[in-house]
Amino acid sequence: MKSLGIGLIGTGYMGKCHALAWNAVAPTFGDVARPRLVHLGEANEALAAQKAAELGFARASGDWRAVVEDPEVDVVSITTPNQFHAEMTIAALQAGKHVWCEKPMATSEADALAMLEAAEASGKVAALGYNYIQNPAIRHMSGLIGQGAIGMVNHVRVEMDEDFMADAAAPFGWKSEAASGYGALDDFAVHPLSLLSVLVGRITSVVVDMAKPYAERPLASGGSRAVETHDIANILFRLESGASGSLLVNRSAWGRKGRIAIQIFGSEGSLLYDQERMNELQLFQARGPVAERGFRTILTGTAHPPYDRFIPAPGHGLGFNDLKVIEARELMRRIAGEPAHLIEFATGLQIERAVHAMARSHEVRGWVDVPE
Amino acid sequence: MKSLGIGLIGTGYMGKCHALAWNAVAPTFGDVARPRLVHLGEANEALAAQKAAELGFARASGDWRAVVEDPEVDVVSITTPNQFHAEMTIAALQAGKHVWCEKPMATSEADALAMLEAAEASGKVAALGYNYIQNPAIRHMSGLIGQGAIGMVNHVRVEMDEDFMADAAAPFGWKSEAASGYGALDDFAVHPLSLLSVLVGRITSVVVDMAKPYAERPLASGGSRAVETHDIANILFRLESGASGSLLVNRSAWGRKGRIAIQIFGSEGSLLYDQERMNELQLFQARGPVAERGFRTILTGTAHPPYDRFIPAPGHGLGFNDLKVIEARELMRRIAGEPAHLIEFATGLQIERAVHAMARSHEVRGWVDVPE
Amino acid sequence: MKSLGIGLIGTGYMGKCHALAWNAVAPTFGDVARPRLVHLGEANEALAAQKAAELGFARASGDWRAVVEDPEVDVVSITTPNQFHAEMTIAALQAGKHVWCEKPMATSEADALAMLEAAEASGKVAALGYNYIQNPAIRHMSGLIGQGAIGMVNHVRVEMDEDFMADAAAPFGWKSEAASGYGALDDFAVHPLSLLSVLVGRITSVVVDMAKPYAERPLASGGSRAVETHDIANILFRLESGASGSLLVNRSAWGRKGRIAIQIFGSEGSLLYDQERMNELQLFQARGPVAERGFRTILTGTAHPPYDRFIPAPGHGLGFNDLKVIEARELMRRIAGEPAHLIEFATGLQIERAVHAMARSHEVRGWVDVPE
Amino acid sequence: MKSLGIGLIGTGYMGKCHALAWNAVAPTFGDVARPRLVHLGEANEALAAQKAAELGFARASGDWRAVVEDPEVDVVSITTPNQFHAEMTIAALQAGKHVWCEKPMATSEADALAMLEAAEASGKVAALGYNYIQNPAIRHMSGLIGQGAIGMVNHVRVEMDEDFMADAAAPFGWKSEAASGYGALDDFAVHPLSLLSVLVGRITSVVVDMAKPYAERPLASGGSRAVETHDIANILFRLESGASGSLLVNRSAWGRKGRIAIQIFGSEGSLLYDQERMNELQLFQARGPVAERGFRTILTGTAHPPYDRFIPAPGHGLGFNDLKVIEARELMRRIAGEPAHLIEFATGLQIERAVHAMARSHEVRGWVDVPE
Ligand SMILES: NC(=O)C1=CN([C@@H]2O[C@H](COP(=O)(O)OP(=O)(O)OC[C@H]3O[C@@H](n4cnc5c(N)ncnc54)[C@H](O)[C@@H]3O)[C@@H](O)[C@H]2O)C=CC1
Ligand SMILES: NC(=O)C1=CN([C@@H]2O[C@H](COP(=O)(O)OP(=O)(O)OC[C@H]3O[C@@H](n4cnc5c(N)ncnc54)[C@H](O)[C@@H]3O)[C@@H](O)[C@H]2O)C=CC1
Ligand SMILES: NC(=O)C1=CN([C@@H]2O[C@H](COP(=O)(O)OP(=O)(O)OC[C@H]3O[C@@H](n4cnc5c(N)ncnc54)[C@H](O)[C@@H]3O)[C@@H](O)[C@H]2O)C=CC1
Ligand SMILES: NC(=O)C1=CN([C@@H]2O[C@H](COP(=O)(O)OP(=O)(O)OC[C@H]3O[C@@H](n4cnc5c(N)ncnc54)[C@H](O)[C@@H]3O)[C@@H](O)[C@H]2O)C=CC1
Repeated sequence: MKSLGIGLIGTGYMGKCHALAWNAVAPTFGDVARPRLVHLGEANEALAAQKAAELGFARASGDWRAVVEDPEVDVVSITTPNQFHAEMTIAALQAGKHVWCEKPMATSEADALAMLEAAEASGKVAALGYNYIQNPAIRHMSGLIGQGAIGMVNHVRVEMDEDFMADAAAPFGWKSEAASGYGALDDFAVHPLSLLSVLVGRITSVVVDMAKPYAERPLASGGSRAVETHDIANILFRLESGASGSLLVNRSAWGRKGRIAIQIFGSEGSLLYDQERMNELQLFQARGPVAERGFRTILTGTAHPPYDRFIPAPGHGLGFNDLKVIEARELMRRIAGEPAHLIEFATGLQIERAVHAMARSHEVRGWVDVPE
Repeated sequence: MKSLGIGLIGTGYMGKCHALAWNAVAPTFGDVARPRLVHLGEANEALAAQKAAELGFARASGDWRAVVEDPEVDVVSITTPNQFHAEMTIAALQAGKHVWCEKPMATSEADALAMLEAAEASGKVAALGYNYIQNPAIRHMSGLIGQGAIGMVNHVRVEMDEDFMADAAAPFGWKSEAASGYGALDDFAVHPLSLLSVLVGRITSVVVDMAKPYAERPLASGGSRAVETHDIANILFRLESGASGSLLVNRSAWGRKGRIAIQIFGSEGSLLYDQERMNELQLFQARGPVAERGFRTILTGTAHPPYDRFIPAPGHGLGFNDLKVIEARELMRRIAGEPAHLIEFATGLQIERAVHAMARSHEVRGWVDVPE
Repeated sequence: MKSLGIGLIGTGYMGKCHALAWNAVAPTFGDVARPRLVHLGEANEALAAQKAAELGFARASGDWRAVVEDPEVDVVSITTPNQFHAEMTIAALQAGKHVWCEKPMATSEADALAMLEAAEASGKVAALGYNYIQNPAIRHMSGLIGQGAIGMVNHVRVEMDEDFMADAAAPFGWKSEAASGYGALDDFAVHPLSLLSVLVGRITSVVVDMAKPYAERPLASGGSRAVETHDIANILFRLESGASGSLLVNRSAWGRKGRIAIQIFGSEGSLLYDQERMNELQLFQARGPVAERGFRTILTGTAHPPYDRFIPAPGHGLGFNDLKVIEARELMRRIAGEPAHLIEFATGLQIERAVHAMARSHEVRGWVDVPE
Repeated sequence: MKSLGIGLIGTGYMGKCHALAWNAVAPTFGDVARPRLVHLGEANEALAAQKAAELGFARASGDWRAVVEDPEVDVVSITTPNQFHAEMTIAALQAGKHVWCEKPMATSEADALAMLEAAEASGKVAALGYNYIQNPAIRHMSGLIGQGAIGMVNHVRVEMDEDFMADAAAPFGWKSEAASGYGALDDFAVHPLSLLSVLVGRITSVVVDMAKPYAERPLASGGSRAVETHDIANILFRLESGASGSLLVNRSAWGRKGRIAIQIFGSEGSLLYDQERMNELQLFQARGPVAERGFRTILTGTAHPPYDRFIPAPGHGLGFNDLKVIEARELMRRIAGEPAHLIEFATGLQIERAVHAMARSHEVRGWVDVPE
């Protein structure tokens, strides 16, 4: 496969993460041509130029359209705030580029649908940045479930918690404005939904309670303002299989930094995972003498592909950024027409629909079906 | 205070636990007269006699009424299956005895109410066997919350899981019959409800999804039978304060043996607990340099009363049975007219009402208020 | 077996623990006659009388010889400070009593030897209070090793740490005086040695470094005094099998409360244990797919005898005091002529010899053989 | 600073790790010119060419001297087996290149000394690949100790364990030949020694016991061969401060994958770390109410530089390879004449001397001083 030309729009948290991944994917995997870092777009020329220098891109523009239209660009990484995803993605697809867009897909179901339609019309690859599914630990859990290591899955619990909104004294910010979305639900819950999607399948119905830990937050200017978003979302759900589950997300959870805790119970065993210890999984199997049964803490290693592409010794630890490198490799596989492990736009739309159904459930105070 | 005469009805799991507690309470606390083990009742004479010998009771009867009517008995421990609680408790109270009845209070709200009324009419002490609230770790958590160590509580999560119903191949038993109750809800959830009650107060509304991991279970006689109870119950709730929470219980959770995991999030910190590591609690406080913040694992010890009554060295570990000894001491305090830390019938009835409201919510598939 | 008459000398930490065990052993195990609490001895009459009331003993004396000579006493629990063990034990044995003496055996090798000789001469049972070996987790580990679950043991590490001597500002006390012994070595190391003895066998040679975290400690009267004992002892050893190991003990280890951490490595697996989580053990076996290997955290339960005598549900947790109840039962078995799991005086002497060899090694700054 | 030209010799485990680091350092840190990957050397032309393509180097040679002499090369990464370190390093230094040599420094003290002398003669930077010291968690521990957060350090324990030599059935390999060195001691112990060196200072005396878990190992050809190296090394030591400590290393420790467990005890607190959970550290401080004390698990994050250069959100997890990126940045700082956090050859030689003193101690079966 010849080298891909890369465009990058946005250079914040995720923009840098994509840039690091494009930089690392060839030497890490050793079986692909090194991507060419062609064109970087940012909010203005100066920032674009500075970031291009830092991140190693050849060209820089203050207008993202220049990236999308650059003939040397084959794939566009879209890492801007959510409200830009639809417009930029559709433009890139229409310009004949593959798209690697950060999660969540869009800020409305309509936009997400338009994105999927654009992707289908273009015939190009359109994938979303759901990096957590790339963790060798998660892949292994998925494999174990597939092989029946824990029997039939009958119950699932997921929690996602951080504490960046936990400080009641922090001034009112845009994350507390209704314009930013529902709150933890779209900010957070999409990640666990991507994990559920690869581990246990589709959610079909939900009942939801969103909550505000702080009714008001102080204004920098003095006084306070009513909070419009929900930092907490509590969800009960059913899977297509009928299995029950819960999804609990909280971005005001003091002490939690990057927790995504998963518990999967089956007829012959259980699986546990916590993103804060992302190099471990726990497996219980109802086999062998009762006196020797217990949760086994498995450290990921060379037996859990593609860990070995990073480190030839087990238990040494991948990092969060490494997941994006794996994601980049999967995207390259997909572009080359090979089977790949990715959340593409069709599944992405399902995730969006689940989120909007959840928000509706909160409003109607009752169960809501998730349209397929 | 003069020595109390003890009656015990039932000598299974909990009956023995009560007997051990009555045996140990005086030497452990050193400040009360040793209870006299007067009269033990069991399902038949032979068993009663055998158990009286084992457990150290002076008299034994195959008819529980003899225990209740024994003039030397001051307090009756009722540790029979749930369906007997109401009748035995009411008879004991009417006979002028204090009652220490195992949880749950009764199998119907009407029975529970009748029990409360009997208790009030009698003027005797009537307490329930919610031993988990006696853990020095739980008491300390309660104290910390009271002092504002984690600020205003705004979110709570509780899980209770065991795996004694996890084996799909185990023959259909009475726990799968509707006559035994709802399933995990009344079997299990009352324990976490007792903990919530002492830690964060009353639940006011709920939405619930109960689930059956196995639709059928094999019959010993061959073939299979449809399961009538729910081994799983998933509950979202609101507290009186408006704080949101979840309660997830599963008695088919492979690998879980005695898990009661509590997470309490407040405006200035968080508290964690897991009954499987019952001598630990975890405290996060949003204080001091950010680089030094983290969850602190506190081992209970002599600084957490009444741990010191058991062991004068910290971190050496209490056991499950020790909680019942503390409970016995609290009951004795209460009988002596002192302030005590106990779940009495009024609170017990609240717990029952919450359970029945939960079951209703499952049926109506929507939110239900919990009557006070 | 007819009921044993119990004498108890000393009613501090361990005295109470013995009293609780004598109280609980019959109802817990259900297969032995309830011991009669006959005679309690303390340093003076008043204390003896008070404690006899609290702990349920029929008679009390300010002179321990009265206990030893009481014709109704069959077994004497000796729980006084170490310097009294030899005299009291020998007197009790000579008076024809069985002895249950707290660890360590004595303050000198000569005393320990005299105790063993007295025991042999008496034909009575003479056991030591090494309760940690009674933990069902430890027994299970021992069983696993015996069955070859981890192959041939080739390396062992033990740590024992508490922090009751960690406060540099605490006034100089008797534990810092040479008269109290070597320091952590005799105070602590005997416990791990008892565990090593049941798990992996006898230590044959040692090299030791003892250390003083604080050279001086403040005097209550002002000024300070040079510390004469060593709060830290670091030991490398070889077992009879040739396997190497280490034993590290520290009674000034801030944050450690009751840590006894054991790591046993074999040719086919490993075993881990930590007394601060005394209801857990960890087992790694080099079996099955590499991708599924890991340390299994086994919660003790009904599959780990005699846990089931305390609680019929697994994973609910025994406490430190429960170990003494098991020890009491083992002692009763031994008195009845049945096989029992106990550290008796012959093994106790070996432990003492190991301790003294360790102290010699520290002095000569080199390897020292441990006499058998 | 202008861009550095990079030479790389060796492309195995560490060679790839260096290549990934040179690739990532500029986009990660954003404040340095991107290194130019100039010249890669391997054992033969074909491998060199293949690896140059994979890792992104411009030129490739089957003779490492070509790398060392390449005028466009400013720094040489030496990642070949230990026996080549001295020759290659000295040649590179003499050719006027900076050197980044993997640990351990050399296979003999004489070689290590010659390397230091060559470095001093050259005036070039000569650093060693002790990546573990770069972990933000370790740096923070070092900072905490420096600030007195745990008072005066009085005791230290380090363990390093993996299980790549644990399989007794694996055929005899070069790691079991005396020619490869002492065994775990030089293979492993140098890493902990680098950590001790930055955390608590220099070791001054040691007593050591090395051990062979398996006396023989099977030959691929049938039969077996006596093992000449020691997979286990047990070390007691004293630090310059007089504090005692232990270092226990085992490369046959079933179940351990990348454990480097550190325990540091001070007069006012303790610090814990385990490389298998490299994004966590634990801090106990003897401050505040006793009932609230415990080990605090601190997840590294943006408050622990330079974590923030990788991820702007805390608790998301760095990986093993990220440590090398930090090391590369430190090396660049050092080359630019700025203060840097690195193990250079002078300290490297101290580490070598400690290792050789340890081996001598094993032979003489007694305490040995470590020359400065
Ligand atoms: N996969 C994951 O784990 C994560 C995904 N995300 C997602 O990544 C996206 C970006 O989030 P962050 O990187 O955290 O935000 P950020 O605020 O750190 O970065 C956004 C960047 O976009 C740039 N930008 C804004 N408007 C632009 C325009 N019109 N043209 C060009 N550039 C423009 C900004 O200047 C900024 O550099 C979001 O969709 C977010 O949900 C964020 C964090 C983690
Ligand atoms: N507090 C706690 O943690 C726990 C509480 N429980 C509660 O304790 C109660 C008993 O449960 P278990 O001890 O597990 O049951 P179990 O089945 O072990 O024991 C029940 C005992 O009651 C006796 N019994 C039955 N009918 C009787 C009658 N008419 N007269 C006299 N004795 C009779 C049985 O022979 C048996 O010995 C239940 O209400 C249960 O919910 C049970 C386990 C834990
Ligand atoms: N097995 C275990 O885990 C433990 C064992 N021990 C051992 O138990 C023994 C006692 O230690 P603690 O109970 O901690 O000490 P303690 O100081 O709490 O109790 C000692 C008791 O002996 C009494 N005593 C002293 N001289 C006496 C005399 N001449 N006659 C009668 N009574 C006398 C004291 O008044 C006091 O009540 C020691 O040998 C110690 O090593 C202590 C703690 C734990
Ligand atoms: N810092 C750390 O955490 C680690 C450091 N190391 C150190 O890194 C060094 C290399 O170890 P590994 O990478 O594990 O070994 P390796 O066997 O994976 O790689 C060594 C490489 O050197 C090449 N090589 C051998 N002779 C050569 C020659 N004459 N000219 C050019 N290339 C030659 C080999 O072909 C191979 O590619 C060792 O000194 C080792 O101790 C190894 C692992 C971890």
